[in-house]
Amino acid sequence: MVNGIERPLDLLNNSKNKEVLVHLKGDQQFVGTLLAFDIHINLVLDNTKEMKDNELKRNIGLTFLRGDTIIFISPASTALKKE
Amino acid sequence: MVNGIERPLDLLNNSKNKEVLVHLKGDQQFVGTLLAFDIHINLVLDNTKEMKDNELKRNIGLTFLRGDTIIFISPASTALKKE
Amino acid sequence: MVNGIERPLDLLNNSKNKEVLVHLKGDQQFVGTLLAFDIHINLVLDNTKEMKDNELKRNIGLTFLRGDTIIFISPASTALKKE
Amino acid sequence: MVNGIERPLDLLNNSKNKEVLVHLKGDQQFVGTLLAFDIHINLVLDNTKEMKDNELKRNIGLTFLRGDTIIFISPASTALKKE
Amino acid sequence: MVNGIERPLDLLNNSKNKEVLVHLKGDQQFVGTLLAFDIHINLVLDNTKEMKDNELKRNIGLTFLRGDTIIFISPASTALKKE
Amino acid sequence: MVNGIERPLDLLNNSKNKEVLVHLKGDQQFVGTLLAFDIHINLVLDNTKEMKDNELKRNIGLTFLRGDTIIFISPASTALKKE
Amino acid sequence: MVNGIERPLDLLNNSKNKEVLVHLKGDQQFVGTLLAFDIHINLVLDNTKEMKDNELKRNIGLTFLRGDTIIFISPASTALKKE
Repeated sequence: MVNGIERPLDLLNNSKNKEVLVHLKGDQQFVGTLLAFDIHINLVLDNTKEMKDNELKRNIGLTFLRGDTIIFISPASTALKKE
Repeated sequence: MVNGIERPLDLLNNSKNKEVLVHLKGDQQFVGTLLAFDIHINLVLDNTKEMKDNELKRNIGLTFLRGDTIIFISPASTALKKE
Repeated sequence: MVNGIERPLDLLNNSKNKEVLVHLKGDQQFVGTLLAFDIHINLVLDNTKEMKDNELKRNIGLTFLRGDTIIFISPASTALKKE
Repeated sequence: MVNGIERPLDLLNNSKNKEVLVHLKGDQQFVGTLLAFDIHINLVLDNTKEMKDNELKRNIGLTFLRGDTIIFISPASTALKKE
Repeated sequence: MVNGIERPLDLLNNSKNKEVLVHLKGDQQFVGTLLAFDIHINLVLDNTKEMKDNELKRNIGLTFLRGDTIIFISPASTALKKE
Repeated sequence: MVNGIERPLDLLNNSKNKEVLVHLKGDQQFVGTLLAFDIHINLVLDNTKEMKDNELKRNIGLTFLRGDTIIFISPASTALKKE
Repeated sequence: MVNGIERPLDLLNNSKNKEVLVHLKGDQQFVGTLLAFDIHINLVLDNTKEMKDNELKRNIGLTFLRGDTIIFISPASTALKKE
């Protein structure tokens, strides 16, 4: 499953067009389809859902997320199934 | 809908002259027409409205927003309709 | 009104020698005439007034403001009339 | 045991494919298998567990962790055995 | 009075050997004679007084102030007379 | 005792393979043997002990400490004897 | 007394081998003999005393202080005599 991850950005590349969980400073959480990222870890997510305590807070659709406030990013297939 | 987004800044480019929702650190929120942006994610919005709990707090018209305090930016067409 | 704004700094350039509203982190607000700015968004304002809840807190005259603590800058003509 | 550590990143290199304990600002703690890291100390962990007071909070599987929020990283073999 | 201010640092240059008011993050305030500054807005002040609520807290004489914590700098002639 | 310290990093170099006290932001303290450091003040410590109010909180063995959160580093021979 | 201070770092250079007062973010204060500094304002102090409300909290001897957390540095001859 983890083949081909030589550098941290490889995981983001493998997650393109897949659902990811993004956890921000200040305990904010987003779930959405990863469309694009850059070396600053700026992201574009589609069908983004803002979550609070595993409950949907609101849908914000297509979203540009600044990398600066991100703590971690997980493919939703591994992160959400186990919760 | 998400055609042509290869890099995060492509979403900002697609949103020019359209209404966007900008969420800042410290729970401040702005809605306005995106006129310009740069690689630091500094923005210029027109007809900017400062929002608090989805209520209009004040109109601040034309505004330069420093990228440094931004958490996320969403096209208002997707972000606001679903709220 | 918004002609000629291709990049965010164009708004600052258009606002030279005009009154601007500057909002800082920590809810500090200044109103003054924009004399100069640089790419770090360091500003010089003249006839600067420190505001608190739309009331004048004190006059601090000519002021150098470090860009680092700035959240947004608005031409006072659009920002203040609508409040 | 500590042979071959000339520069700080050598410890991360020695810890590849091994379990590490990662402590973040704000008292968050993760345990997982270190798959990749870069000079910004961005990490990819596999089988990541989010811990709280030495108790498992949740499994988040494969995870990209931004270096920016990390305080320390320890090989789990030395860090966890002694707790 | 404001002739010759093309760039923000021009105000600091004009204020050399004059008294300035320096306001730091965390509401600390210093008054002293500006002897030197650099592009990081590091300052050296002489006859520095640490102020609290417009009262003298202590004299700290010659002082190196790191630019990083500075919010604004005003020539004391304009800032202090009007208080 | 302080011969040969021309630049700050010389003290770290002199402290290699010796016990150091590392004080972090947020009042965390570590004691361990300094194995390696770089210009970002990232450190590797061995036999690291996390301290709280001069009491041992836990042993975390071999540790990579990000420089970003460090306030000061002292050779334990001078820092701990005098406490 | 202030001859020869053209740039901020000149004050640090003049203070070498003299006692300085260093004030950090979070209200921590150190007094010690300045042995070395660099352009990041990293310092090495000898005979360092950690102070709290002008009382000695503890002796930490030889110390490397990261510039990042420093607010101001004063020659102790001017800063401490006047307190």
